[in-house]
Amino acid sequence: MAMRIRVINPNSTTSMTEKIGRCARQVAAPGTEISAANPPHSPPSIEGFTDGAMSVPGLLAEIRKGEADGIDGYVVACFDDTGVDACREVARGPVVGICEAAMHAASMITTGFSVVTTLSRSVPIIEDLVEKYGMHRKCKRVRASDLPVLALEEEGGRAREAIREEILRAVKEDRCEAVILGCAGMADLTAWLTRETGVPVIDGVAVAVKLVEALVGAGLTTSKLGAYAAPLVKGEHATVSDHDGK
Amino acid sequence: MAMRIRVINPNSTTSMTEKIGRCARQVAAPGTEISAANPPHSPPSIEGFTDGAMSVPGLLAEIRKGEADGIDGYVVACFDDTGVDACREVARGPVVGICEAAMHAASMITTGFSVVTTLSRSVPIIEDLVEKYGMHRKCKRVRASDLPVLALEEEGGRAREAIREEILRAVKEDRCEAVILGCAGMADLTAWLTRETGVPVIDGVAVAVKLVEALVGAGLTTSKLGAYAAPLVKGEHATVSDHDGK
Amino acid sequence: MAMRIRVINPNSTTSMTEKIGRCARQVAAPGTEISAANPPHSPPSIEGFTDGAMSVPGLLAEIRKGEADGIDGYVVACFDDTGVDACREVARGPVVGICEAAMHAASMITTGFSVVTTLSRSVPIIEDLVEKYGMHRKCKRVRASDLPVLALEEEGGRAREAIREEILRAVKEDRCEAVILGCAGMADLTAWLTRETGVPVIDGVAVAVKLVEALVGAGLTTSKLGAYAAPLVKGEHATVSDHDGK
Amino acid sequence: MAMRIRVINPNSTTSMTEKIGRCARQVAAPGTEISAANPPHSPPSIEGFTDGAMSVPGLLAEIRKGEADGIDGYVVACFDDTGVDACREVARGPVVGICEAAMHAASMITTGFSVVTTLSRSVPIIEDLVEKYGMHRKCKRVRASDLPVLALEEEGGRAREAIREEILRAVKEDRCEAVILGCAGMADLTAWLTRETGVPVIDGVAVAVKLVEALVGAGLTTSKLGAYAAPLVKGEHATVSDHDGK
Amino acid sequence: MAMRIRVINPNSTTSMTEKIGRCARQVAAPGTEISAANPPHSPPSIEGFTDGAMSVPGLLAEIRKGEADGIDGYVVACFDDTGVDACREVARGPVVGICEAAMHAASMITTGFSVVTTLSRSVPIIEDLVEKYGMHRKCKRVRASDLPVLALEEEGGRAREAIREEILRAVKEDRCEAVILGCAGMADLTAWLTRETGVPVIDGVAVAVKLVEALVGAGLTTSKLGAYAAPLVKGEHATVSDHDGK
Amino acid sequence: MAMRIRVINPNSTTSMTEKIGRCARQVAAPGTEISAANPPHSPPSIEGFTDGAMSVPGLLAEIRKGEADGIDGYVVACFDDTGVDACREVARGPVVGICEAAMHAASMITTGFSVVTTLSRSVPIIEDLVEKYGMHRKCKRVRASDLPVLALEEEGGRAREAIREEILRAVKEDRCEAVILGCAGMADLTAWLTRETGVPVIDGVAVAVKLVEALVGAGLTTSKLGAYAAPLVKGEHATVSDHDGK
Repeated sequence: MAMRIRVINPNSTTSMTEKIGRCARQVAAPGTEISAANPPHSPPSIEGFTDGAMSVPGLLAEIRKGEADGIDGYVVACFDDTGVDACREVARGPVVGICEAAMHAASMITTGFSVVTTLSRSVPIIEDLVEKYGMHRKCKRVRASDLPVLALEEEGGRAREAIREEILRAVKEDRCEAVILGCAGMADLTAWLTRETGVPVIDGVAVAVKLVEALVGAGLTTSKLGAYAAPLVKGEHATVSDHDGK
Repeated sequence: MAMRIRVINPNSTTSMTEKIGRCARQVAAPGTEISAANPPHSPPSIEGFTDGAMSVPGLLAEIRKGEADGIDGYVVACFDDTGVDACREVARGPVVGICEAAMHAASMITTGFSVVTTLSRSVPIIEDLVEKYGMHRKCKRVRASDLPVLALEEEGGRAREAIREEILRAVKEDRCEAVILGCAGMADLTAWLTRETGVPVIDGVAVAVKLVEALVGAGLTTSKLGAYAAPLVKGEHATVSDHDGK
Repeated sequence: MAMRIRVINPNSTTSMTEKIGRCARQVAAPGTEISAANPPHSPPSIEGFTDGAMSVPGLLAEIRKGEADGIDGYVVACFDDTGVDACREVARGPVVGICEAAMHAASMITTGFSVVTTLSRSVPIIEDLVEKYGMHRKCKRVRASDLPVLALEEEGGRAREAIREEILRAVKEDRCEAVILGCAGMADLTAWLTRETGVPVIDGVAVAVKLVEALVGAGLTTSKLGAYAAPLVKGEHATVSDHDGK
Repeated sequence: MAMRIRVINPNSTTSMTEKIGRCARQVAAPGTEISAANPPHSPPSIEGFTDGAMSVPGLLAEIRKGEADGIDGYVVACFDDTGVDACREVARGPVVGICEAAMHAASMITTGFSVVTTLSRSVPIIEDLVEKYGMHRKCKRVRASDLPVLALEEEGGRAREAIREEILRAVKEDRCEAVILGCAGMADLTAWLTRETGVPVIDGVAVAVKLVEALVGAGLTTSKLGAYAAPLVKGEHATVSDHDGK
Repeated sequence: MAMRIRVINPNSTTSMTEKIGRCARQVAAPGTEISAANPPHSPPSIEGFTDGAMSVPGLLAEIRKGEADGIDGYVVACFDDTGVDACREVARGPVVGICEAAMHAASMITTGFSVVTTLSRSVPIIEDLVEKYGMHRKCKRVRASDLPVLALEEEGGRAREAIREEILRAVKEDRCEAVILGCAGMADLTAWLTRETGVPVIDGVAVAVKLVEALVGAGLTTSKLGAYAAPLVKGEHATVSDHDGK
Repeated sequence: MAMRIRVINPNSTTSMTEKIGRCARQVAAPGTEISAANPPHSPPSIEGFTDGAMSVPGLLAEIRKGEADGIDGYVVACFDDTGVDACREVARGPVVGICEAAMHAASMITTGFSVVTTLSRSVPIIEDLVEKYGMHRKCKRVRASDLPVLALEEEGGRAREAIREEILRAVKEDRCEAVILGCAGMADLTAWLTRETGVPVIDGVAVAVKLVEALVGAGLTTSKLGAYAAPLVKGEHATVSDHDGK
C-alpha cells in the first residue's frame, strides 16, 4: 500500500503550491503518493511574524483534513516552519518543516552551511529556528537576497540571478560548505543553482519529503506522551474546528 | 494626559479577562488607564501549541482595535507569550508578554527563580521561552501543578493549595529565590501565596503592566527598523482583518 | 506617599552625577522623588576592571546611606553594572544597573540591538554582562567609539559626533534595530542622537529609573532567600561600614 | 537501479553485524540493497574512547572498499558515532551515524527524549555527541543500564529486562517523550520494548538506514568544499590504505 | 634566579593566610620562592558579593606591593576568584585564581567534576564562574556543605567530616570523576580527604601555584594589548594608590 | 628523582618530532626529563579527520610504551588534540593536548585570543575543540594561513612570513589580545613571531609541557573513576596492542 504524504503550503498562492507539489513528486520514492494543498484563506506569502501567525489556523484545518484522509505524514512547506509544533498535536504521523529538514540534512553532509532567504525581515525568524534546532554551531549565517517571496513566482524575473550571487558570496565570506534555500518558493531552482555555482544547494521541500518517508518508513509517529498530545477538548468551548471553519 | 494600556487575554474566557483587568488596575500608576479585552472567538484556555496558535488571529485583531483606539502599549496576558512577536509588527507602542515580564523582573531581584504553571504539556513551551529570553542560567526549573487552566476559575477549588505546595517544593528542591506564577489565571493569588509561603511570588500580569508603563514612560516604542516593521500589504490579498472577521 | 529612588553614579565626577540626576528626573513618574549621589572617594571615571573594583566600597556606603534614608529602590549608573550584586545584598528594595535595564528594555522592542560604549577596554566587560544577562542572541555587537569617559563632560567636544557615526555604522553593519548608549555619561545625548540618526536610541539611566519604578510599583523587593541575603556579620570583624569610612 | 547502502559495524563481532544487517533490511525501501560489514581486526565491542579509536582505521578501510564497490551511502552502526567525520572525507555519498540519526529523528517527533545506553563509561561520550549535534535542549538525559555491550548478544540474558526498566524510569524521571536505544546491539529489541513499555522507542540503525535513503534520494552527497574534502595525498607518505592494510 | 610567586589571601584572617602559604610551599618547585600575604583591612572571610567587593581594594594594594617587590606571578586564594580581572590590569606577570586553576586542572584529568564549597550563598557566585570559564559541560554541580568559612579554622571541628560526606554524595549523585574543594581554607584537608574517600580531590591553592609556575616558565605574562592594560591614570584624580592608602 | 614527561608527535615526521623535543626541553624545569617520540607508522602530517584517526592507534602504542617506561605525564603534540581522550584511558599520569594547553593558558592572560593554524580544513576541527573546552567566549576566531603542515619543515620557506601576517591581521580584525599557534610544527617560531609582531604568541607545546609539570607537581593523575578508567579487556578479543603491532 502506498505511503501518503501531504505537502502543505501555508500560504494561499496556488501557483506556489503547484510548484512545491511538482518538486516533491520529483524526489518521492516509487511507493509514495504526494498530495499538495494550501489553506483557501491565508496570506498569499509568509513574510514576517503576522503572516506566519495568520496562516496557522488554515494550516491546522488542512492537517485535520489530512487526518480524515488517512495521510501518513506531512511537510509544512514554509521556511519559517510556521505552526509545525501545533500541527504535531493534531497529526498522528510525523510532521516535518522544510527549515528543520534542510538543516538536519545539511548537518550530515557538511561541517557548516549558510541559508539564503528572501527578505531581511525573515532573518531573525530563521535565526530563532537555528537556535531551536541546535544548529548555531553549524549555521554560519542567514542571508537575505532582499527579494519579496512572490518575485519568485514571476517569469523571467531577476530572482534567480540574485540568489545565485548570494550563494557565491556565502561560500566566499562564510566559509560554508553548502547553502540552504530559505524559501519554499525557491524549490524549483535547486538544480540550476547547483549547476551554476558548483556549491551543494539544499532545498528544504525535497529533503522534508524524504525525511517524512524516512520517519514513516522507520515506523515512527509523533509521540503523544507529552507536549504533542492531541489538543484538549474543553467543555464550554465550541470545538476548534467549528471555530476554524466559520 | 493618561497613558492608555490595554491588557489582552488571548483566550475567550471573559471571567479570566475581568480578573486580569482587576489585577492590572491594582498595580497601575495613577496616570495609567487600563482596559482589558479578549478576542470573541478564541479557545477558552491556552493549553498547548494548537490553542496558542488558534488564539493569535483574534489577538491581532484586538491589537488592531487598540491601534485605532490610540492605545500606548499592550500586555499579552498568556504565560506562553502567544503571538507577542506578531503583535509587535502591528503595534506602534510596546507589547510585553507576561512570561518575559516576570522573567526580566525576577532576574533583577534574584540569582535564580522557578516557574509554577498549570499543565505538564505547557512545560516545554515555557522552556522554549526560557531559552528565547536567555534565562537558562536564571530559571532553575519549570514546574507543573497539573491543574487545567480553567480550574483556576472555580470557586473553592483545590487550585490554590496545589500551587502553594508546588511553590514550597520549588524552594526546597530547586534552590530558587523566587517563584513565578506561570499562568495569567493565577494573578489574583499572588498576595495570598506570598503570605502563605514566605517566598517572593511574581505575577507576570502585574509586572507586565509596570514594564509597559516603564517603556512608554522612557519614550520607547517598538522598533520599526527590522523584523517588527508593519506587516507588508500584498496586492491580491484580502486584508488580514477582512479574513479574520469572516 | 512618594516613591523614593536614588541614582548612584559610582564615580566621583559630580558634573556627571548632576547630569545623570537631571536625565533621571526627566523620565520619573509624578509620584517619584529622585535623588542623585556619588561616593566622595572613587575613581573619576570607570574605565576598566580596576576602576570598577575601586568604586564599589564607596558605592556600597551610598547604598547604606540610602537604606538609612528609607530609599525604595536604586539605580547604579555605570554601564559596567559595577557592584550591582553586592548592592543587592545590602538593599531591601530593588537595585537595577543601567546596562541590564537597557538590555531588558531593548529585548522587548527589537529582535536585536547593538551597544556603543566609550573605550575599547570596556568592550570585554560589557560582553561579559551580555552573557550574564542571557543577551548573547539579542546583542549583535558591543562597539567602542574610543572616547574617554570624561570627554563626554567637555563642552563643544567631538564626542557626540563620534557617537552618532558609530550608531550609523552599527545599524548598517550589525543589522541591529536599536542602539544602546554604553555609558551613563551619554544620557543627555539620547534625544539628539535619536533625532539625528532616526534609530531608536536607548539610554540605560532613563530605563533603569523606570524599571525601578516598575519593580517597586509591582511590590517586588530584592529576594533575601539566597545569594542576596544581607551580608553576614562576623565576630572579630570591624564592621564593613567602619572599614569603609576610614 | 537499486540504491546501495552499506551498514558498517565498527567492531569485529560478526553476530552483531548480522543482527544489524537484518534490522537494516527490515526497514529498507524496496529499491534499496543493504550490505552489512565489519572490519576484520577491531575491538569486539566499542566501550570507551580507546575501543572507539582502535576501530576507526578498520572502519575507514571498509569505507574504501565500499567506494570501490560503488556504494551510494553508509551507516556507521556504533552509537558513539565513531569515526563518522573521517568516513565523510573518504566517502562520496552520505555517511550517517546511528546516534545522530536517532537524535535528528527524535527531535522531529518529540519535544524531548532520553537515551538508554550500556555502560556508564559511554555516557560522557554520548553527552559530547549531544552537544556536537546541538541536542542539549532536546536530550533530557543519557542513562546507562550498566550492561556490557556483548551481554546483548547472549541468548536468554537479563539484558532486555534491564533496558525495559531503564526506559520506564526515563519516562517517569526525565519527562521524556521517547527513548533512544544507545547501542547498535539493541536494534532487535525495538519492537518488543515499544510494546512492553508503551513508549516510542527509537533504534538508530533503522533510522540511519532511512536517513541515508533520504539523503541519497534527495540527490545529496557529502560536501567536498571544506573539511570533508578527500584526505590529502602526501609525497613521502606510504598511502594511508597501504599502511592500513599492513 | 628564583621565581617569586606571591599567594594573596584576600581576607584578613592571618591564620588562613599562613595555612595557605604552607600548602603553597608544599607543592612549589625547588626554584620557586613563595610568599603569602593578606590585606590588613578586609573582611575576615569572603562569604557573598559584598565581602568579595570589600576585599578587592586591599587585594589590589597587595598586588601593587608585589609589583614593587618584583614578584613574577600571583595566586588569588579565594575560591570566588575575587578581583582577579582587576589584578591582571595591575600586574605584569600572570595572576591566577584558585577556582579557575582547579577547574582547568580538573578538565584535563576528568570528563566531569563537582565542587564542594562552604555556604549556599556562595553557590550562585561559583556557578557564575563556571559559566565564565566555559566549564558548564564539565562541572556537574556546585555543592554547599553549609559550613561558615571560619569553621575551617577551628581545631577539632566537624568541618572535615561534613566535607567528606559531601564529597561522597557528589560522586554518587553527580557521576563526577573528581571533586574540587571550593574554599581556600580547605587546602590543608586535601590529602586526608583523598585518602578517606578514594576520590581525586583537587585543591585550587596547590594547582594555582603550579599554574603560575607553568605560565611564568613558559614565558607568558598578562597581555597588555586590551582589557588587561594598566589602569588609566586620570588628570584630576588622586591616584588610585593614594586613595587606596587613606 | 626526575619527573619524566614524554612528548608524542602523532605524525611520523621525525624532523618535526625532533623540533618539538627541542622546544619542550627549552621550557622544561630543571628536574624534568623530556623524551620525544612518534609512532613509526602514521601519516606524515595530520591534516583533517582521516589523518587524525589514522594516527591514534600508533599514538596509543606510544602511550603504552611510556607506561612501561614509567613516564609521569604526556604531551600530545598535535593541535587537533588527536586521541587525547583515548590516551587518558591508557595512561595513569596526566595527558595534555597542545590545543587545550594553549587555550587554558591564553584564557588566564587575556580576555580573548585567536588561533592561527595551517590549512582551512583544520579550522572546523579546531572550532570543535573550542566548544569542547568551553572557549567559545574567549576564542575570537580560528584562522588558517593556508600552509600545508610540512611547509613548516622547509628551510627558507615563506611559512613564517605568512604566519606573521596572519597574526597581525588577527590583532587588527579580531580584537584579540594574544595569538595561539595552531600547529606543533610552528613551535620554534614563537620567539621570532613575538619579537616581530609585538603580540603575545602562545605555543601549545611549551605550555603543555609546563601544564603536565604542574599537574604532576600538584599530585594529580588521570581520574580512573569514570570515562577514563583503563580500557576493558575482553574475552575473545586479540589484545589491542597485538592488533596495533601487526
